Amino acid sequence: MVDILHRVAIKASTAEVYTALTTVEGLAGWWATNTKGKGNDISGVLQFRFDAGGFDMEVLELDPAKRVRWEAVEGPEEWVGTHVDWNLEQVDDYAVVLFKHEGWKEPVEFMHHCSTKWAVFLLSLKSLVETGKGAPDPHDVKIDNWN
Amino acid sequence: MVDILHRVAIKASTAEVYTALTTVEGLAGWWATNTKGKGNDISGVLQFRFDAGGFDMEVLELDPAKRVRWEAVEGPEEWVGTHVDWNLEQVDDYAVVLFKHEGWKEPVEFMHHCSTKWAVFLLSLKSLVETGKGAPDPHDVKIDNWN
Repeated sequence: MVDILHRVAIKASTAEVYTALTTVEGLAGWWATNTKGKGNDISGVLQFRFDAGGFDMEVLELDPAKRVRWEAVEGPEEWVGTHVDWNLEQVDDYAVVLFKHEGWKEPVEFMHHCSTKWAVFLLSLKSLVETGKGAPDPHDVKIDNWN
Repeated sequence: MVDILHRVAIKASTAEVYTALTTVEGLAGWWATNTKGKGNDISGVLQFRFDAGGFDMEVLELDPAKRVRWEAVEGPEEWVGTHVDWNLEQVDDYAVVLFKHEGWKEPVEFMHHCSTKWAVFLLSLKSLVETGKGAPDPHDVKIDNWN
């Protein structure tokens, strides 16, 4: 089992970041413009749709301003059953975000792609919360020939 | 042992990307403006210096236009003994870069930071090769309260 790890710090409160992770409006502002579902209820399901396909995430854990945990229940086969884990901590003026996408079975080439792409979207999240403007799909930074 | 993985694709030849990975001029154009040493000889050592410190990398493997492998021989204790591995493959108009920074002992918070920061620098490498202008330290994209 191998994991994707990232860390960003956002000049904001952890409550503001939590809102961007648990509301459709927030998620559509940094990840996928085409987001539907329920992000602020345990067992709620979020549907993220991209040009090339999409993912459904079930909300497993919610601890306001501190933690969010999702399970990928639909999507590319490499994703199904993996977990996306968000830990938030206030350090002075920053909401520090520790991110994990864990439970990949193999470090396949697609995992390399997703690791870089998660970094791009985490910087989009940072930008959304700090400036009001993120770069969600389809306006996201393109990284490779897979997008 | 845990690894940082990334993938970018650069609209260029793998030979051009290889040059950006093995010459001081190339490395200074996307990673650390303050780069010294020898990147195109086996056992050569490259010194990368940032505001907050730096790394020395020994060149372990060189396969022109295909592969570069370094060992971190000086730097933060979490880095020393880890390996940075670059695999290049030409796919149509793109040089696909598969990147691994492998051999971390523990998935510490600093590893999360470095994972995101590597993504930022890989996009700087892509920009350098495609446009002639990268964003090396100290002009790099800041990601968190550690920089």
